[in-house]
Amino acid sequence: MQNIKRLFDINPWKISTTHLHKEELRLQESLTSIGNGYMGMRGNFEEDYSGDHHAGSYLAGVWYPDKTRVGWWKNGYPEYFGKVINAVNFIAMDIYVDGEKVDLAKQEPKDFYLELDMKNGLLTRQYTLETANATLVFAFKRFLSVATKELGVMSLEVKATAGEAVVKVVSKLDGDVRNEDSNYDEMFWEHKASSVEEGLGLLTTETIPNNFGIERFAVTSVMKNETNASLMAEEVTDFLVTQTFEAHVSTTESLSLTKKVVILTSRDVAQAQQASEAKELLKSVTDDFTTLLEVQTSEWAKRWALADVVIDGDDEAQQGIRFNLFQLFSTYYGEDARLNIGPKGFTGEKYGGATYWDTEAYAVPLYLALADPEVTKNLLTYRHNQLPQAQHNARQQGLAGALYPMVTFTGVECHNEWEITFEEIHRNGAIAYAIYNYTNYTGDESYVKEEGLEVLTEIARFWADRVHYSKRQDAYMMHGVTGPNEYENNVNNNWYTNYIAAWVLKYTAEMFEKFRSEATVSISDEELAKWAEIVEKMYYPKDETLGVFVQHDTFLDKDLMPVSDLEAQHLPLNQNWSWDRILRSCFIKQADVLQGIYFFNDEFTREEKQKNFEFYEPMTVHESSLSPCIHAILAAELGMEEKAVEMYQRTARLDLDNYNNDTEDGLHITSMTGSWLAIVQGFAQMKTANDTLSFSPFLPSIWNGYAFHINYRGSLLEIKVSKVGVVMNLVSGPSLEVTVYDQVYNLADTLTVALKEA
Amino acid sequence: MQNIKRLFDINPWKISTTHLHKEELRLQESLTSIGNGYMGMRGNFEEDYSGDHHAGSYLAGVWYPDKTRVGWWKNGYPEYFGKVINAVNFIAMDIYVDGEKVDLAKQEPKDFYLELDMKNGLLTRQYTLETANATLVFAFKRFLSVATKELGVMSLEVKATAGEAVVKVVSKLDGDVRNEDSNYDEMFWEHKASSVEEGLGLLTTETIPNNFGIERFAVTSVMKNETNASLMAEEVTDFLVTQTFEAHVSTTESLSLTKKVVILTSRDVAQAQQASEAKELLKSVTDDFTTLLEVQTSEWAKRWALADVVIDGDDEAQQGIRFNLFQLFSTYYGEDARLNIGPKGFTGEKYGGATYWDTEAYAVPLYLALADPEVTKNLLTYRHNQLPQAQHNARQQGLAGALYPMVTFTGVECHNEWEITFEEIHRNGAIAYAIYNYTNYTGDESYVKEEGLEVLTEIARFWADRVHYSKRQDAYMMHGVTGPNEYENNVNNNWYTNYIAAWVLKYTAEMFEKFRSEATVSISDEELAKWAEIVEKMYYPKDETLGVFVQHDTFLDKDLMPVSDLEAQHLPLNQNWSWDRILRSCFIKQADVLQGIYFFNDEFTREEKQKNFEFYEPMTVHESSLSPCIHAILAAELGMEEKAVEMYQRTARLDLDNYNNDTEDGLHITSMTGSWLAIVQGFAQMKTANDTLSFSPFLPSIWNGYAFHINYRGSLLEIKVSKVGVVMNLVSGPSLEVTVYDQVYNLADTLTVALKEA
Repeated sequence: MQNIKRLFDINPWKISTTHLHKEELRLQESLTSIGNGYMGMRGNFEEDYSGDHHAGSYLAGVWYPDKTRVGWWKNGYPEYFGKVINAVNFIAMDIYVDGEKVDLAKQEPKDFYLELDMKNGLLTRQYTLETANATLVFAFKRFLSVATKELGVMSLEVKATAGEAVVKVVSKLDGDVRNEDSNYDEMFWEHKASSVEEGLGLLTTETIPNNFGIERFAVTSVMKNETNASLMAEEVTDFLVTQTFEAHVSTTESLSLTKKVVILTSRDVAQAQQASEAKELLKSVTDDFTTLLEVQTSEWAKRWALADVVIDGDDEAQQGIRFNLFQLFSTYYGEDARLNIGPKGFTGEKYGGATYWDTEAYAVPLYLALADPEVTKNLLTYRHNQLPQAQHNARQQGLAGALYPMVTFTGVECHNEWEITFEEIHRNGAIAYAIYNYTNYTGDESYVKEEGLEVLTEIARFWADRVHYSKRQDAYMMHGVTGPNEYENNVNNNWYTNYIAAWVLKYTAEMFEKFRSEATVSISDEELAKWAEIVEKMYYPKDETLGVFVQHDTFLDKDLMPVSDLEAQHLPLNQNWSWDRILRSCFIKQADVLQGIYFFNDEFTREEKQKNFEFYEPMTVHESSLSPCIHAILAAELGMEEKAVEMYQRTARLDLDNYNNDTEDGLHITSMTGSWLAIVQGFAQMKTANDTLSFSPFLPSIWNGYAFHINYRGSLLEIKVSKVGVVMNLVSGPSLEVTVYDQVYNLADTLTVALKEA
Repeated sequence: MQNIKRLFDINPWKISTTHLHKEELRLQESLTSIGNGYMGMRGNFEEDYSGDHHAGSYLAGVWYPDKTRVGWWKNGYPEYFGKVINAVNFIAMDIYVDGEKVDLAKQEPKDFYLELDMKNGLLTRQYTLETANATLVFAFKRFLSVATKELGVMSLEVKATAGEAVVKVVSKLDGDVRNEDSNYDEMFWEHKASSVEEGLGLLTTETIPNNFGIERFAVTSVMKNETNASLMAEEVTDFLVTQTFEAHVSTTESLSLTKKVVILTSRDVAQAQQASEAKELLKSVTDDFTTLLEVQTSEWAKRWALADVVIDGDDEAQQGIRFNLFQLFSTYYGEDARLNIGPKGFTGEKYGGATYWDTEAYAVPLYLALADPEVTKNLLTYRHNQLPQAQHNARQQGLAGALYPMVTFTGVECHNEWEITFEEIHRNGAIAYAIYNYTNYTGDESYVKEEGLEVLTEIARFWADRVHYSKRQDAYMMHGVTGPNEYENNVNNNWYTNYIAAWVLKYTAEMFEKFRSEATVSISDEELAKWAEIVEKMYYPKDETLGVFVQHDTFLDKDLMPVSDLEAQHLPLNQNWSWDRILRSCFIKQADVLQGIYFFNDEFTREEKQKNFEFYEPMTVHESSLSPCIHAILAAELGMEEKAVEMYQRTARLDLDNYNNDTEDGLHITSMTGSWLAIVQGFAQMKTANDTLSFSPFLPSIWNGYAFHINYRGSLLEIKVSKVGVVMNLVSGPSLEVTVYDQVYNLADTLTVALKEA
């Protein structure tokens, strides 16, 4: 029933195609995005392309507070909407053959080939053009260096297989770039400097002033073009720096050009020093393309050695999870504590902001297992640093404590749909949950007892003020919220939100009691008593007959029906139904009750899990990219293998198969962890609650096996699940207790446990 | 507890002040607006004013479809927002004294006096300026002609009480005007022609093109300046036409100038003919200011003879209702069936659109009583003409039938808050109710049996599709609506909406059965049966213990408290609370359950009315201008005289006392009928249900008496309520049966009934 659109061939390590999809160029560009955590870009062509597409290059942490645009102002709305902004286009190279511009929108290339190699992030493109006098083969390669974050490297080679031609290349630094979605069609950059000196092109631009006291960002890019072609011209305007080269190309003479670009931003280097430091850095990059690529490949190899999930017997599934891990690490690998994981990473402009609750809810578990604990601690510290801004957000609503934002760069909310900004407050719970998750997973209590408690206390105070007491029900309630299921808005007593709010109150009180003497916060006994009363009298909608937790007060009054009753033409609902119809329907965008059961898994019985899953999943359309993985995990736990595999497939290939028909806007970066969660927490049933590590793996019948690594409390484990059983290797670190299928083992070296029958 | 702000003195027929409130100039301008149904303007000064104020002149039916601006698009949103647009400023006259510009923002006038005479719509202003060489008295007068709608007349006289000076007047037609609230700061006008010929200044502009297929409007204004001063210059640019005059002013020589302006729009005269027709019309206006004003006064006298409500013993109350009737008739007097009653009339730009459900719910009862039935029929026909657009609106939501818009010029919805546009659908019921109201009040069934049934049927079909069947409750429900109380959004089973929806289904079926043979619509028996089932099984939330109808499903779970528990600094809530806090609170913007009880008054027992009033009114903040009148009416019926008077005061003096602290944006035109409703349907308890006319008057103890007229089925009645009793005079038309205090009388001449004791 799902409509999918697949542009690229199945291959375990590559994203490749022999077709140029001009009518789907935006989708193709999204899927061939590359990044190195410092910067990134959509898979735009180097040469000019006049057809519909979306040129976008982005620099981590460089943004602009765009004046907020809403039709009808509500009290409490933020004044600006923070936008990831399109930055200097440094890959651009206009190409002319005998004076005619190469433009694939107008020309028909032959032997087209496009490939993104996930082993090293190399983007390769090749095609043949029949021109008036020659048959020319163009080959492009580029990557963004993982070893030297400020460096991007491109190469172009033009050969002739017949005839001859004069080929001209205009290599550019183009600062005249705009956001497609700016509210007032504004240009966000102003000129600072541009020049060509000593063969190096240089462009400095700075974000325009703003009225919101937000930092301005200066960006300098420097390019060096190494080529066998002749330099014909160097031109400089405010926003454009070009070097023009020309070569005669024949069956015996080819043109080759390597373009190296270094980009510095005022986040790291003051504007006054940028030009000299950038030039110096660029000059130090003396290796040729091949050598630089070898370094790149070995850096990525280290990442893959730890993070790769190997799936034996299903290349579609294999390609999906590698694509997700590749794009996730291209966006964020934890090196810079000032950064977070934006919803589109470097692959698009939609949604704005750089920080969502997705990080805490979906990314933290992966980074805990695949990176040094410092990476996760950086993510927690990021929120701790933004506590004053979160307090400001709560004040905007007239409430106590701290409200972490839905969308932000600085910690100040910058989103402005009332049903989200003001109501989707469950996000505040996820921030607290991540503190628990870090502490529980790593066993390191040093964070929670100081910074962590400061954050927890203020979040708890928010919840204590946000609930109200209903005399009629003698219960604490929460009205006017939007749960993770954003296909309902402004509901009362969203089960998930009530549950996580009460959990925060409990957990905060517990941590405070535990670390009272060392804590930097103080909580009065009266306040603790109030919290305890709220926890005790919190209202949880529930239906005894159905045996389910009820999503919110009146959900069961809806016209309930499974998604399978809908004809395919209605899906995705968000593109085919009016908002009114979506809101009133029973269809669920994303796990809501199930999200709570996932977070607090050990607090529910198997029967509760099963009844809720069987009730809600059939009504879920999974139009949030965050939805399928949670369902895959629970389905796996419940032995619903087919459903688990279906959900895995959907999360793993969400973008590759364009399930939600919106990948042209960019990749769903924050949900890229979903396929890893589905395999590790789902298929392998890794659980870490209560200071124990346990697994209960199953092997999908269509697979031969799967394998992955995890870090756990200083030990590195390899887990392989195949028909021969569950094989665990302690790769490094101390031996540890591991529970497999409810039986406790000491893992000192290797352990093999037979697969449990389904 | 209410914060009020009163700029003008109490006077039964005048709005006047001796203070220039520079810091409240916008409020002063709103309150001194004038209009003649064809055009109107805020009480701007003729001479330049450099301080904060809002210059605005508007032409009925002349608008622009401004590109919609919302932060987050929802499927079903309209593409444009229709705006009443600021049109040519034709009152402008820059004044210079010995070369220095008169600008009251910078100068301090003495003996300032400003007066709006409600007897004839004459705006008068006078002040004295001490200049370097003289003491000058400036006197301005202006009115917009009721006899010749296209005509505006201004006069200026400048005298000296000491010294002498050269006074220069630059009389202008200024087309360089903008809307303060345009979404992209666009200028909505383009130049067509400008000239001065034969002493007549002429300016033609046209609204800029739009992408929505909306008609463009061309406007021509022609001015003639009749003066004893000397013509010094005539200047013409694209958007500005000026004639400059100069005179020597001393204690013996004064300057006087009468400026007559005629404005034509392409709504009535094609652009090509506008210049010649406008000149011809202007040349035909040969009378002097005084004579023209006499005609104006006699035209207004006719209106007042029918419509005036006389209140004896309370000038505040008297001034309030006259102000409301004056401003209402200045906006709409029913002459042009293509027009409707915009929320701000000609007094501001906020809200946009020209047609709201306010017309049907609040204005129709007044026009039924105070104007020829044709006026109300025009309002009904207006909606009938827009039936195809209402069907379009329903389709936008994926629903059957017709959905009349929340805000519109053409019938197509142009508002874009999802909680309003998609959800505040109770408006559709009011459109149907007005058909019932007209038919019941006039006894004329000719409308309902053809056009009326077409509208009713499509509205009924909308409701039948919009409800859903809840298996669990074996009931039809309506989820996701916003009731008249806009301080709650997206609620389920709003009692009022469910009630009016079922009523429409019943009434439509009843009318169809009655006129089946003549009807131009066909409704199948199956459809009628479905409607009957919905009516039978409609779900109405209700609390037996409290004996109240429940506003919506979970209202009683709120933290319920009276407004009197709030400190004054919180009011108005919409200016002091976050939207989140407002939505979650129990406080009510506008009658919701009580609105239903008002509409369907005879379907409820006195006990039901009382319990609901006593339950809801204390939680109502009346921050909708439409709220107090309904409460005044019900309070009066329930014998709560003090509350009735308080609510009358609030509706009558809403703008004069700036109760909602927003009158600077413009007057609340559509709620101007409220004070009349409060007196006639409230204090006098006029009821007209079931083809009978009845009264049950009370006299507020602080008044000596009140009197008003009504038209009813061809008879004109005068009703006087005073300490001597209820006196009814049949002024004209056939004798009729009238019920007073439940006793039926035949009114052939005069009838006196003793006042019933409270």
